Amino acid sequence: MLVLGLMSGTSVDGIDVSLVRISGAPPNLQIKLLNHTAISFPTAVRKEILRIAEQTPISAGELSQLHSRLGHIYAEAALAACKKFRISPGKVDLIGNHGQTVFHQGPRSERKVGSGEWRVASKVPSTLQIGDGSIVAARTGITTVSDFRPADMALGGNGAPLVPFADYALYRHPKLGRVSLNIGGIANVTVVPASATPGKLFAFDTGPGNMLIDALVSHFTHGRQRFDKNAALAQQGRAIPALLNELLRDPYLRLAPPKSTGREYYGAAYVKKLLVLGKTHHAKPNDLIRTTTIFTALSIVDALNRFVLPKHKIHQLIVSGGGAQNPFLVAQLSALLISVKSNLKSDEWRVVSGEKRQIPRFARNDDSSVMQPIEVLPSSALGVPTDAKESLAFALLAYETFHQRPSNIPSATGARGPAILGKISYAPQR
Amino acid sequence: MLVLGLMSGTSVDGIDVSLVRISGAPPNLQIKLLNHTAISFPTAVRKEILRIAEQTPISAGELSQLHSRLGHIYAEAALAACKKFRISPGKVDLIGNHGQTVFHQGPRSERKVGSGEWRVASKVPSTLQIGDGSIVAARTGITTVSDFRPADMALGGNGAPLVPFADYALYRHPKLGRVSLNIGGIANVTVVPASATPGKLFAFDTGPGNMLIDALVSHFTHGRQRFDKNAALAQQGRAIPALLNELLRDPYLRLAPPKSTGREYYGAAYVKKLLVLGKTHHAKPNDLIRTTTIFTALSIVDALNRFVLPKHKIHQLIVSGGGAQNPFLVAQLSALLISVKSNLKSDEWRVVSGEKRQIPRFARNDDSSVMQPIEVLPSSALGVPTDAKESLAFALLAYETFHQRPSNIPSATGARGPAILGKISYAPQR
Repeated sequence: MLVLGLMSGTSVDGIDVSLVRISGAPPNLQIKLLNHTAISFPTAVRKEILRIAEQTPISAGELSQLHSRLGHIYAEAALAACKKFRISPGKVDLIGNHGQTVFHQGPRSERKVGSGEWRVASKVPSTLQIGDGSIVAARTGITTVSDFRPADMALGGNGAPLVPFADYALYRHPKLGRVSLNIGGIANVTVVPASATPGKLFAFDTGPGNMLIDALVSHFTHGRQRFDKNAALAQQGRAIPALLNELLRDPYLRLAPPKSTGREYYGAAYVKKLLVLGKTHHAKPNDLIRTTTIFTALSIVDALNRFVLPKHKIHQLIVSGGGAQNPFLVAQLSALLISVKSNLKSDEWRVVSGEKRQIPRFARNDDSSVMQPIEVLPSSALGVPTDAKESLAFALLAYETFHQRPSNIPSATGARGPAILGKISYAPQR
Repeated sequence: MLVLGLMSGTSVDGIDVSLVRISGAPPNLQIKLLNHTAISFPTAVRKEILRIAEQTPISAGELSQLHSRLGHIYAEAALAACKKFRISPGKVDLIGNHGQTVFHQGPRSERKVGSGEWRVASKVPSTLQIGDGSIVAARTGITTVSDFRPADMALGGNGAPLVPFADYALYRHPKLGRVSLNIGGIANVTVVPASATPGKLFAFDTGPGNMLIDALVSHFTHGRQRFDKNAALAQQGRAIPALLNELLRDPYLRLAPPKSTGREYYGAAYVKKLLVLGKTHHAKPNDLIRTTTIFTALSIVDALNRFVLPKHKIHQLIVSGGGAQNPFLVAQLSALLISVKSNLKSDEWRVVSGEKRQIPRFARNDDSSVMQPIEVLPSSALGVPTDAKESLAFALLAYETFHQRPSNIPSATGARGPAILGKISYAPQR
């Protein structure tokens, strides 16, 4: 089957589209990425999504209309991608459309995370991805799978992460233990032990990806820049360890997986707090951006140290997502992972990459069994461009759902069992 | 196949559940209603639905949580119905769940209806039925079709009415022209000419059903009563023709079909206006309830006179929905339909059933070709209990969608062509 995967993440940059040829069935799926592209959201639409995702009160009608409008926008993105790929939409068999998350609160994020200001009140775990699949199907003439997350959540799962199925299909290796790290708005990891079966996979959101950095850059440039291109701003600042120290108190980091998070937690309220903390610590804008970039890298390595390396032998960290293109973030990751090997004592711990101050709250792993080299690789080194990974994943999940097969990884989401993800909207007859 | 149909209408009373045995394919569908029941919404949930459907501003998270909570409630209703019907859920093949409409604005309602206060601002036609199908499928173990309306709307249709497919399947008669009238929160008619093909059907929302009456009763009884049981209140009031006259100015009545409406239009703002008009005309509560009941009956007969009887020979009006159990409303309908036959001159026109004042704005049809007896029948006379009609219809629509067949009636919805309605959520493997 020829399948289009459409992904638009929590950073609300736009829509990544992958065209993927898929055949077979697990564990023998054949997957070939044929092409990929990215399509921006119109500015007004981006603003409206952010307004709604930040939980600004709106009427049901406003949400309904954005749901519908985004359906049309995704359909147009799919058609524009077909044109760019020089393929007739009539030859595409299926679309997997993630949709735009405007709310996500899994059972675990609700139960344990946050006190006071960071908490979203809730009694029912729920998730909302908007962009109507029926409109995508009708406008493109291509049967569409949408709304992947609630089926897992209905079985007690977090509804996230869902990419681990793709990590399994793409990265499982007979001898190498691998961690797939996607740095989107939120950063998430999938642990794929050597020769793993799906039940052995292990995945969770580590915390912020680009979301906090992007928000600061957008704030300080008054919206002229949306992200720290080539880490130019972070490179000009200096890190403020006392601030980093406070950030590392974030209770999400200590929450045991499976866990997931999003803009409800790392959104406007969090950024406001960051800005207040920055003032308290006399941080200049670029200092705050640099410190937050280091915090982001630390939160990822912290998660590996706490929850992964003590249990699994890992040879490679495969990085994808927009954050893979932030050289300072990737350098920090590499440096921090190297330093894991150095087995420093707790009170000797220092951030190695030029920040010479102690960061006592950073979780380390002193067990000598983890003294192994971890190679940091972009996913492109394994044939998946860093910016196509997630859209490819949703093509794959749609393919599985179309064949009525489950594709959640219960060990990653915490679900009680396998779920057939998403809802199928059949295209009108051609 | 054994199919459960779940319907919860704009009056937000609760969930009607039908168990239907269906086999074959159009035009030879075999349909047998095996059982039906109704399950109330918990009061807190009903209030929350009404709050959201009245377009009170809420966060995306609140809507997401109600979407999820309603998914669980529909699932529990399906399971409770199975228990009541003494059938194992494992023997049910499919669920069709309409969901709860919290917003609906078709292309036609947007383009033409209302000025100023009655208008909901919109640029994109959209509709939102909440109650997550994935949760229903997961909790019941039964594959579920949900969210039927947007696929039709994506083809330029109003996304409503959708019941005409069932009217076609149930009521098409080789010799009798029939109108199926469902009086739910909104009233709608489907015209099924004798020996019609689907393309000859014709359907639209005539205007208010029970919605205005229920709102007044609830208002005047401070919520102690939700509807005018046996028309006890209307029977105690007297009609106020000048007020009726003003109500009949409602521009929706003159809007040519296809057209659809809902709580966005006949909701809180409309009722507020009704209450103000009532005061202006010194109407006591029961006077206002009686006058509004007559307005409701008039709006239905007005629609038949304007848009149906001039074009089609109709022998029977088959009434279903909660309004079929309001004896004063049904008596008014019968009386008004009889009076159509009497070919009175325009200035002689009077409401016949005890209200002896002139109602000049009421549309009549003086064409002698419509001088025919129209028999008013409850749908139960044709084997479909008046309160099971709509839930049966959504069982039937789900059956068609499951078989990848279209089931909108473009001549009813205004869509450009056939649409496969709804989204399929597969149950986890049993």
